[in-house]
Amino acid sequence: MKVKITETILRDAHQSLIATRMRTRNMLPIVDKLDQVGYYSLEMWGGATFDSSIRYLNEDPWERLRELKKHMQETPAQMLLRGQNLVGYRHYSDDIVEKFVKKAYENGIDIFRVFDAVNDIRNMEKAITVAKKEGAHVQGTIAYTISPVHTIDKYVELATGLAELECDSICIKDMAGLISPQQAYDLVKALKAEVNIPVDLHAHCTSGMAPMSYMSACRAGVDILDTALSPFAWGTSQPPTESIVASLAETKRATGLDLELISEISQYFKDLKEEYRCILDPISEQVDTNVLLYQIPGGMLSNLVSQLKEQDALDKFDDVLKEMPLVRAELGYPPLVTPTSQIVGTQAVLNVLMGERYKVIPKEVKDYVRGLYGRPPQKISDEIIAKIIGDEEPISCRPADLIAPEYEKAKKEAEEMGIVSKEEDILTYALYPAIAPAFLKGELEEEQLTPIMEKKHPCAAAADVTGIPTD
Amino acid sequence: MKVKITETILRDAHQSLIATRMRTRNMLPIVDKLDQVGYYSLEMWGGATFDSSIRYLNEDPWERLRELKKHMQETPAQMLLRGQNLVGYRHYSDDIVEKFVKKAYENGIDIFRVFDAVNDIRNMEKAITVAKKEGAHVQGTIAYTISPVHTIDKYVELATGLAELECDSICIKDMAGLISPQQAYDLVKALKAEVNIPVDLHAHCTSGMAPMSYMSACRAGVDILDTALSPFAWGTSQPPTESIVASLAETKRATGLDLELISEISQYFKDLKEEYRCILDPISEQVDTNVLLYQIPGGMLSNLVSQLKEQDALDKFDDVLKEMPLVRAELGYPPLVTPTSQIVGTQAVLNVLMGERYKVIPKEVKDYVRGLYGRPPQKISDEIIAKIIGDEEPISCRPADLIAPEYEKAKKEAEEMGIVSKEEDILTYALYPAIAPAFLKGELEEEQLTPIMEKKHPCAAAADVTGIPTD
Ligand SMILES: [Co+2]
Ligand SMILES: [Co+2]
Repeated sequence: MKVKITETILRDAHQSLIATRMRTRNMLPIVDKLDQVGYYSLEMWGGATFDSSIRYLNEDPWERLRELKKHMQETPAQMLLRGQNLVGYRHYSDDIVEKFVKKAYENGIDIFRVFDAVNDIRNMEKAITVAKKEGAHVQGTIAYTISPVHTIDKYVELATGLAELECDSICIKDMAGLISPQQAYDLVKALKAEVNIPVDLHAHCTSGMAPMSYMSACRAGVDILDTALSPFAWGTSQPPTESIVASLAETKRATGLDLELISEISQYFKDLKEEYRCILDPISEQVDTNVLLYQIPGGMLSNLVSQLKEQDALDKFDDVLKEMPLVRAELGYPPLVTPTSQIVGTQAVLNVLMGERYKVIPKEVKDYVRGLYGRPPQKISDEIIAKIIGDEEPISCRPADLIAPEYEKAKKEAEEMGIVSKEEDILTYALYPAIAPAFLKGELEEEQLTPIMEKKHPCAAAADVTGIPTD
Repeated sequence: MKVKITETILRDAHQSLIATRMRTRNMLPIVDKLDQVGYYSLEMWGGATFDSSIRYLNEDPWERLRELKKHMQETPAQMLLRGQNLVGYRHYSDDIVEKFVKKAYENGIDIFRVFDAVNDIRNMEKAITVAKKEGAHVQGTIAYTISPVHTIDKYVELATGLAELECDSICIKDMAGLISPQQAYDLVKALKAEVNIPVDLHAHCTSGMAPMSYMSACRAGVDILDTALSPFAWGTSQPPTESIVASLAETKRATGLDLELISEISQYFKDLKEEYRCILDPISEQVDTNVLLYQIPGGMLSNLVSQLKEQDALDKFDDVLKEMPLVRAELGYPPLVTPTSQIVGTQAVLNVLMGERYKVIPKEVKDYVRGLYGRPPQKISDEIIAKIIGDEEPISCRPADLIAPEYEKAKKEAEEMGIVSKEEDILTYALYPAIAPAFLKGELEEEQLTPIMEKKHPCAAAADVTGIPTD
């Protein structure tokens, strides 16, 4: 049976390679053509695009959605939603989640891919049920990682839970490029056998294994693959659409997509890439061997290096590298993705620099142990809990149950500031209170296309942006 | 069973990505480590390296061989030999071939990979028998291409012929990156079933399919894969060593190589790449969709564009694109590789520009039809033969049978010029008479590392260098 293709060129591809900087005006001339290819879907919203539009491009993300959608007659519009985090970096209240999902659907999103950094289904539940109620296709997501507790059985259990929430499909989301061909085969095979909905594999080429893992996923019966047109493929992005389509062409799993049309579109992005070349980090186009050796995402290591440099302690790098898996294990093996990668990384650095483990503990680590980020994949030992939050009892409820409604308050504030000209502006403000007012007042300017400085905030879990989001 | 790895970092990887410009002094510091990895072999000589050493680097290729060899205690040294063309661009006489192969063996080459552009075994025979007699391992090669006459059966027939010449292994050499996973599977499967010697797959990532084709070759039982350390992998180079090793690690075909050591070596080349970045054409790191659409190697299309531009006839590009497969078919479907790609391309351009097919015919095309390049994969029709060489009869003998011994003459000339300080210098002169005297007299200088201009000679079959060699 045909493999279906989700094209990521308008979201993940440029998020991965050019820091989410592609402008709407660069997308519009080619959407009609993209719409004709026959993709399963076009991922074009969510993830870091919302933040980036406002912060760097002086673009209204809601406008982008509406403008692109006008040209998408044939192809479902897909977005990436960070569960209760929506398109931000903290848990929002349920009423915000509800409003946001409804507005996203209303403005054109057909497929919601919903994930959570620690695979806590309770963090995805609200978004999923709202989107389902609206009539959207919901893709429940497994954030893929490697650890002793991340077994095939556990992933199947999660997928089963997502199917029970009436998700229409399952996505294996390998944001760090960890999944090997064998692992992809085994996991897809198990999901296809145990869960009765389509399976999508989303991987990044960071370690160079993704194209090969895609092939073995096909043999195992995967339904959908995420690819990016070749000018914005490889490296930390997805495998190239053209190569995957061509590789499958002669097989039983041929996509049926027209390579000639795809190549024509690809030429457009090849030219466009030249405009963005100055912000393209060549490193992000290379194989990251650290992913292969330590299962540590590339961005995370560079964050560590920055932190150590700041402390003039680069000689401690190897110690930190050894400390990190220990901390990760003690914290119950969270997938290393924003924000858990920062939580683990920062604690590891502190443990080494202080000369005593858990002598200094940042608020984010405490909150994580309190259960405010969700349930860690493995239960944290009583000893570690005591070390980190003392006598305090971790919560056992869904984290968002502790968050009071926020929408009315945000609405009132935004209206008082005079920044609301459409309902969506209230959401923009609720999600990005620090930057939204200036943006909505029209005080921001589009960033020029000049080389991007390292914009990494080693301990930025509390800020709007936390390092480089990998999703 | 273990898949073995041939590492191409010292030859094909830099030939493909930085125009064969890697210096010996950049190789020497890392050879000891490369030697410890446990590679099946280290490709480090031949192909375009000989020419490039002399012409651009002011380096003696024989010296490079000897210097590198000193550090290779564990790993066989491999070279690429263009059959009767050796490391040049025309057929040499048998006595030159014999001397060259002997000297290469004497100076350290353990494995000779021998190929011919049109897969005419008679063009490989001499080199193979001499190398065998010396005691070397000989890898007979299939130059892979796609055409109606290039069937699995034909490839098996060629491989059988090579095995009968006592080749120790067979290489499928996909210089243009054409081979799809399905084709790789079918071909390897057939070779393994029909020919009783190990099979090596050598592919380029030009179309992006190579990593996937490598995986299916593994399933089909391939013995050896050619890979390049990741900093000089992808694009027109080989798939990355690290990713292939990691992808196979958990399978029955695991290579057993140490990723940690490989990553350490890789870091060396990552740093080195920065020195060469100015001559790295970003295009050569991208997926070439023309390969997928037209099975036309990337370099060939850029040659065509140059030719048309020179004639102010870029508007004829589409016509030439249509003409090319016609010419290729009429000429008996040669693989499109140096020099046959130039032969087909130039004739196609002339056919279009002249407004009449075969009105103007370059000498190289005539020589090709005369059989001087070897036997075309398919017999050329009498009509086309007549059109191109009139009443002349194509030769039926081995092309080199028509070449008188050249060695003594070259020796005499070289000695008279006073440029012989070792026997190998005579060979250098015999192969590159235009450039060797100045080089051997010490009159050349190392080229500086500045961006390389397009050095493409549209009709350069007669010159020392013919466009960009793809092997
Ligand atoms: Co992603
Ligand atoms: Co090659």
